[in-house]
Amino acid sequence: MITTIDLNSDMGEGFGPWRIGDGVDDQIMPLISSANIATGFHAGDPSTMSRTIHLAQQHRVRIGSHPGYRDLVGFGRRTIQASQQELINDIVYQMGALEAFARLNGLNVQHVKPHGALYMTMAQNEALSQAFIEAVQAINPSLLVFCMEASQTYKVAKALGQPVVREFFADREYDMTGSIVFTRQVGPLDPAQVARRVLTACQEGYVKTVDGQHLEIGFDSICIHSDTPGALELVRHTRQALLEHGITIEAVGERS
Amino acid sequence: MITTIDLNSDMGEGFGPWRIGDGVDDQIMPLISSANIATGFHAGDPSTMSRTIHLAQQHRVRIGSHPGYRDLVGFGRRTIQASQQELINDIVYQMGALEAFARLNGLNVQHVKPHGALYMTMAQNEALSQAFIEAVQAINPSLLVFCMEASQTYKVAKALGQPVVREFFADREYDMTGSIVFTRQVGPLDPAQVARRVLTACQEGYVKTVDGQHLEIGFDSICIHSDTPGALELVRHTRQALLEHGITIEAVGERS
Amino acid sequence: MITTIDLNSDMGEGFGPWRIGDGVDDQIMPLISSANIATGFHAGDPSTMSRTIHLAQQHRVRIGSHPGYRDLVGFGRRTIQASQQELINDIVYQMGALEAFARLNGLNVQHVKPHGALYMTMAQNEALSQAFIEAVQAINPSLLVFCMEASQTYKVAKALGQPVVREFFADREYDMTGSIVFTRQVGPLDPAQVARRVLTACQEGYVKTVDGQHLEIGFDSICIHSDTPGALELVRHTRQALLEHGITIEAVGERS
Amino acid sequence: MITTIDLNSDMGEGFGPWRIGDGVDDQIMPLISSANIATGFHAGDPSTMSRTIHLAQQHRVRIGSHPGYRDLVGFGRRTIQASQQELINDIVYQMGALEAFARLNGLNVQHVKPHGALYMTMAQNEALSQAFIEAVQAINPSLLVFCMEASQTYKVAKALGQPVVREFFADREYDMTGSIVFTRQVGPLDPAQVARRVLTACQEGYVKTVDGQHLEIGFDSICIHSDTPGALELVRHTRQALLEHGITIEAVGERS
Repeated sequence: MITTIDLNSDMGEGFGPWRIGDGVDDQIMPLISSANIATGFHAGDPSTMSRTIHLAQQHRVRIGSHPGYRDLVGFGRRTIQASQQELINDIVYQMGALEAFARLNGLNVQHVKPHGALYMTMAQNEALSQAFIEAVQAINPSLLVFCMEASQTYKVAKALGQPVVREFFADREYDMTGSIVFTRQVGPLDPAQVARRVLTACQEGYVKTVDGQHLEIGFDSICIHSDTPGALELVRHTRQALLEHGITIEAVGERS
Repeated sequence: MITTIDLNSDMGEGFGPWRIGDGVDDQIMPLISSANIATGFHAGDPSTMSRTIHLAQQHRVRIGSHPGYRDLVGFGRRTIQASQQELINDIVYQMGALEAFARLNGLNVQHVKPHGALYMTMAQNEALSQAFIEAVQAINPSLLVFCMEASQTYKVAKALGQPVVREFFADREYDMTGSIVFTRQVGPLDPAQVARRVLTACQEGYVKTVDGQHLEIGFDSICIHSDTPGALELVRHTRQALLEHGITIEAVGERS
Repeated sequence: MITTIDLNSDMGEGFGPWRIGDGVDDQIMPLISSANIATGFHAGDPSTMSRTIHLAQQHRVRIGSHPGYRDLVGFGRRTIQASQQELINDIVYQMGALEAFARLNGLNVQHVKPHGALYMTMAQNEALSQAFIEAVQAINPSLLVFCMEASQTYKVAKALGQPVVREFFADREYDMTGSIVFTRQVGPLDPAQVARRVLTACQEGYVKTVDGQHLEIGFDSICIHSDTPGALELVRHTRQALLEHGITIEAVGERS
Repeated sequence: MITTIDLNSDMGEGFGPWRIGDGVDDQIMPLISSANIATGFHAGDPSTMSRTIHLAQQHRVRIGSHPGYRDLVGFGRRTIQASQQELINDIVYQMGALEAFARLNGLNVQHVKPHGALYMTMAQNEALSQAFIEAVQAINPSLLVFCMEASQTYKVAKALGQPVVREFFADREYDMTGSIVFTRQVGPLDPAQVARRVLTACQEGYVKTVDGQHLEIGFDSICIHSDTPGALELVRHTRQALLEHGITIEAVGERS
């Protein structure tokens, strides 16, 4: 039975003059507690990053880097057969970029969360997860790693003693392995239904899988993607449902 | 009369499988004291950056970030009419990226030096130089800023108390303003002549300008571009001339 | 006194999953007669180009290539100090790319119109305009070149006998040289006012400049940018005003 | 027993100021009969394409487009999990780009050959091969398609009546399926050994596989990659061996 939970969303996923989804970061930001900030490879240019960090700062939202595959046109949702070392280097580069903007604004980076296909590749790949966690530890041993509990990333982070935050995806389907069903695009969802699903997960500790089974699930943060059509309503309904049922929304980094 | 001098060169300016110039970073690196490491916008991908930092570490060469215009195909040697804020954000992003690799490898970043057309734009633009120096101070107040003495960047850095390193360009023409004559590409140069020119600048404090006049020049570091054809020979001859005349080559960061 | 006029708009200026402006190409397309299709350098990836051509085909809208500076993050609205030959090669490349999609779909390319800062650079540069027109003639001598009457591009196209279409920009300010005042971004405009301005230009042959003077103007096509906020309403109002006053909207290429 | 054969190589695989391999296109070009010209996604910018086409024209070498994955940093040798439609659109875009340069220079494009990982993906994927061949036919039904005989691409091209050219890879290992063993990078090879291998394939119709077996092989063109270290010597030795044994080198497109 969860009484305090983090609410995270991907922020700053525009690029140059372009917006993704409904382009409502400024309305979603005040409603969440942790922002995953796109770091330039799948979305997010330096000026968008700077603006997004200011927005987070203004609403006292904790920030994390959100590194992705070098795949702008595919929004980082296409797997690229890169070597492990290439991927780690790409991640280190992107983590550093966000870190500089954080320092420039007197903020601490709370977490790191790989994006899209890279998140899924990492989840299934123990060696890659290990190299990732080791790089994180060398750069900043107190950084929270966001991942699914049902992932190699979680297993390795725990084994290496890196603080870890398990996510529940409010707007993605689950299979019985505890993994989300990865997809390049999601259609509009019913906000009331999403809010109920989240509430059930928080209060009863399970989620209904894509094939109708009950899957027990433990988590420390709820993720709602900002590029899902109608994302603002999903966040609003979910947030309200949580608050109405006495669940506090607070960044994990605030609790330590 | 100079007795100790820094010798800097741009390193890691390949991209993916591509090499620039003669592709001899591994031979130039042991001969210099400071390496300006390309940070991805005009050259240098994360894996190249990682390799280049290892190479610098191996030869005890001090490292600096070398941010450029977002202009891969033009190698950052084409001016882009970007806003001041865009340029500062691009620079912050790139500085952070290098910083992460440095931290991963237990190194300190010694300096920052904008690349190519961005270096020249900065030199002539007081407001941009000011915004740049302020960003540098917010990120790392002890970072050395490499620039020409005859530049707004130098003037502003001195005024704001940021430590600054004045460069002498061994392989570029000077005009009487004390600025180099910017060019997108340089043809092969005579190594003996370049070495003599550097020696004269070190010992007698002047350089002959493009129109044959004597220009007095003060500097703390000598720059030789690694993409100039025959760069390795330029560095070798210059280094040997310096050593033979009792001038020690040492990174500025080592002296403080 | 104009009785038939072309109405053109930039289409397909998304990139990957991103939309520009209000992202309403599918609603604007049925209202215009000529579509300038982004060809990948400032906006528009191959899949977006393919979709946009299908949309044009469905609404019997004539298509043209809309090549820009290689500047995705700046949406081609930042001048890049490229050499003339580089720019021509960039344009040829992009023209060819659109041509292939046209052929794949059994369409003819009606016109070519450089985008943004490249359009403005071209307008002011006689040598570049000449190289551009010569390249167009070598590729397709019947291609219509869209430009301002007050431009080197127009002058050169006429001199070389390349068919040319003079544009009137409904959503940009004019100065007394007959050139638009270039800007990276335009705020929301009043649709009724824009429509009146266009009507006055069509019926009375003049436009009020940014400093309040009357500028006589001749043109064959009206341009409304699709990334201007509220673009759909601008197009709707303008179209309706034209039709109500007996002015037929028809692509220039239909009239020959 | 082959008496006339095409010799093809990838040309124009630099990017901006960068060179791949030994950077000796100007020395390899006179020795081959067909040039696969990189079209911008894995290598090759518009200005490099333009220069490469001039070089081919000067040496009467036939040209083809060489479209790759959108993966500059990985040189198109990393598979990207793109949709079939995305890949076809990427290919059409790149084919069109080369076509425009060919037309500008009064040349005909002889062939199309996907690059690297895209070539291998295509070889194994019947549906993708079919969509590719259909796109080729819509754009230019006389275009030669270069592929391995042991590929879906070959099978589909034959079935659809598209003229096809089977390649023998002089500098890659074969397995018993008749496919080459794909690799991101190849080390230096012995030119004499490569030449003998090619000669054996031409005269005796077989190649020794990676596990030492005899594989019968039929082909119309020999491919030697220009980014293999020492590529120039590989081409020279192979060419000389062919000529000394009375085998004429001639583009397939010359024979029809």
